[in-house]
Order: sequence, then structure tokens, then C-alpha cells
Amino acid sequence: MRRNAENKTLSEQAADQMIQYIQENGYGPGDKLPTEADLSRLLGVGRNTVREAVRVLASRNIVSVRQGSGTFVSEKQGLADDPFGFSFVEDRVQLTRDLMQIRVMLEPSIAALAAQNAEPEEIRQLEEILLEIEALIEAESDYSEKDTQFHAQIANCSHNTVVSRLIPVISSGVTVFAREVPSEEYKQTLLSHRAIYEAIRTRRAVEAQQAMHLHLLYNENRYTEEIRKENT
Amino acid sequence: MRRNAENKTLSEQAADQMIQYIQENGYGPGDKLPTEADLSRLLGVGRNTVREAVRVLASRNIVSVRQGSGTFVSEKQGLADDPFGFSFVEDRVQLTRDLMQIRVMLEPSIAALAAQNAEPEEIRQLEEILLEIEALIEAESDYSEKDTQFHAQIANCSHNTVVSRLIPVISSGVTVFAREVPSEEYKQTLLSHRAIYEAIRTRRAVEAQQAMHLHLLYNENRYTEEIRKENT
Repeated sequence: MRRNAENKTLSEQAADQMIQYIQENGYGPGDKLPTEADLSRLLGVGRNTVREAVRVLASRNIVSVRQGSGTFVSEKQGLADDPFGFSFVEDRVQLTRDLMQIRVMLEPSIAALAAQNAEPEEIRQLEEILLEIEALIEAESDYSEKDTQFHAQIANCSHNTVVSRLIPVISSGVTVFAREVPSEEYKQTLLSHRAIYEAIRTRRAVEAQQAMHLHLLYNENRYTEEIRKENT
Repeated sequence: MRRNAENKTLSEQAADQMIQYIQENGYGPGDKLPTEADLSRLLGVGRNTVREAVRVLASRNIVSVRQGSGTFVSEKQGLADDPFGFSFVEDRVQLTRDLMQIRVMLEPSIAALAAQNAEPEEIRQLEEILLEIEALIEAESDYSEKDTQFHAQIANCSHNTVVSRLIPVISSGVTVFAREVPSEEYKQTLLSHRAIYEAIRTRRAVEAQQAMHLHLLYNENRYTEEIRKENT
């Protein structure tokens, strides 16, 4: 592979050019990009290089290739799958503890921002997720996927673009509590989600922060207790 | 591309197998993996599939290929380059503000953890970085790279593995303040780094938290001021 001064291969350089092209021409998530032949002409590089560049950008979730229909700007906007390599961490208990510790540091402030910055439409979407969680909890079903969505939507409500990218990664990393859960804990989870939502809806930043703090500490405590039981 | 029930291609499945192989056989960062022929035999898949799988793992920074010497477990341990797609964000001012907001939420608590958990050797390394920053500041040179290292080392001192992965990504995203900086600001930066270091070294978690808070708010304020000047 030929590399230039910056130690980039031709296809990596073409990938950079393609990013610039996407941005300068206002392509958004889901938009179809020009064909390989057109990109080759537009960027002034060979078709093989374009193909390699597309592969690089696809692996970075910047574009997605749909067989038979072409290359599109990815809905994932460059957020990597498993960006921190969690799937490669061996000690799952330590990873879960560390993730919970970060959530306790970060999410109460995010809930406060959400109460302050959320648009009415965003709050409506949050309520929709809440109602789905409540239905799952009433049925004593697994609500972990919806729970991740709930926290992700609060991140969106904060209007901090980095938080929106970070929170789904962190909360989906914590996939525990799959086993039997006593009924009173279901009830506790139901109440704490409702409290967070109500504080955000009524623009009470301090209460949102505290309700989130309580929720996360309760979960952390529950996890510690579970691990303790497993080890005895 | 053939895809199985989980919608994974053959090479992605082989990549998963290879991750499992690496973990189960205790390979660590920098270790050399078996040859393509041996991996093909060990995983029971064709050599072309192994080659594709290696490419997938290389793009995820799980392995690295050194031309002529073989395939190694990557030192990056699966942490993606630009995992949040920052290079793909158009509004740099908004991105910088959002990153600073996260840092203010997160790093004071991390500094407190560092004061509590750091090993003597880690504190020694932190001091080394501090001295390099101080030398650069005395010379009124660009110290941004060392500054990123300083914050990354504090993250290491926290002994939270996710924090160690997260902080370098977040602090290297904030690459501003390149232009002329008044001398008194250099002095302020020098004092605040020293204060954070001293609090960590002497195990004063509360002071470490507050010194980090002050440092970050000062920077945020400086950035806001710079943007205001640019826009008038």
C-alpha cells in the first residue's frame, strides 16, 4: 500500500475526500450518493480506489452499501459499532461496575439538561417510551431494550450532540438483570422512571437530576447485591 | 455476501470466532497471532475468509497487520479511531461546546477517583507529564498534545476501565486555543495543572475534584470569550 506523508493509503485519502464531498454538498443521513463511476470522476481517482474508500467509510458507519441499490449516507452518522471495544473486554463484572460508575457521574446532569432544554415533541416521544416500559413491567417482561431507549431519549432531550452519541453506547453496555426479579423491584423501577419523566416534563431540573441519581444508585446497589449472592 | 440468521457475513462470523480464540488463549496487546494458514485450520474456515476476518478486526482496531511480519493483537484493544464520528461533525463550535460540557460533568469526579485510587507508579507518570507541560508552557509552546495525555493519565489513575477509554477520545476532540494566548493565561494553566496534580498526589479527593472543576470552567469561559471576539 502506498502511503503519503501523513501515512495514509490512497483509499484512506479518497475516503477523506468523500467525507468532504458529502459535507460540502449537504448530503444527510439516508441520502443516496453518486455512483462509483461518478465518484471516480468527481474525486479524480480510480474506481478501485473509490470502492476501497467506500469500504473504509462503511466500516466506520459513515456510508452504508445496499446491494443492488447503491451507496447511502449512513443513519448512524459515523458512530462506530461497539466504539469502545466492550465486546472485547473479558471481565464483564468489572465492565458493568465501571459503566454504572460513569452513568452515576453523568446521567443526573443530563437529566437536568433535558428538563431545561427538551422540546415538547421530544417530551412526547419520551412519554411514549415510558408507557411502553410500564406495559412491559406490568407484564413482568424484559424491558431492557426500552430502558436503553428511555435513557437515549433523555440524552437527546439534553441537546448535547456528544451526549446523544455517548449514552446509547454506555447504557446498552449494561445488559444485566436478566434473571428473576422480585415483584417489588419491578414496582420500584416503574416509579423511578415515572418520576424522572414527570420532572423533565414539568421543567424541574433539580428534581430530574435527583430522580435520575436515585434510579441509578438503586440499580447499582441491586447489581452489587446480585454479584454478592452469586459469589456466596 | 452470504448472511446467516443473525445477519452476519461469513467473514464477520469468522471475526467473532477469532475474538473468542484470542480471549480464550490469553493473547494480549502486541502478541503475534498464528499465521493465516494456521488460523484457517484452527477456525475451520477458508483462507480467504480468514483474510477478510482479519481485515474486519483490523478496521475495529482489535488486530493490526504489519506487512511482512504478521498479524498482532492491537495495542488499541478495540477502541475505534474517532469512535463517535467527530470528524464527520460540521459545526465545530457546537461540538467543542458539547465536549466541554461533558468534561465539566465528568472529569471532576474522575479526578476525585484518581486521588483515591492511583498507584504510586501512576502518580509518578502523571508528574512526568506535568513537568513536560510546565516546560512547554515556560517556552510558550503548544502543549495541547501533552494536555490530552495529562487528562488521559488522570483517567488511568481512576482505575475505571471505561473512563480510560472515554477520556482520550473526549479531550482530543477539543483541539482549540491554537492562536496567540496572553502570557497570564499560560500562567493560569500552569497553576491549575499543578493544583490538580498536587491534590491527587496527596490523596485529597475533594480538592482534586474542585481543582479540576475550576480548570475546566476556566477553559470553557476562555473558549466562549474567544468565540464572542471572533463573531464581533
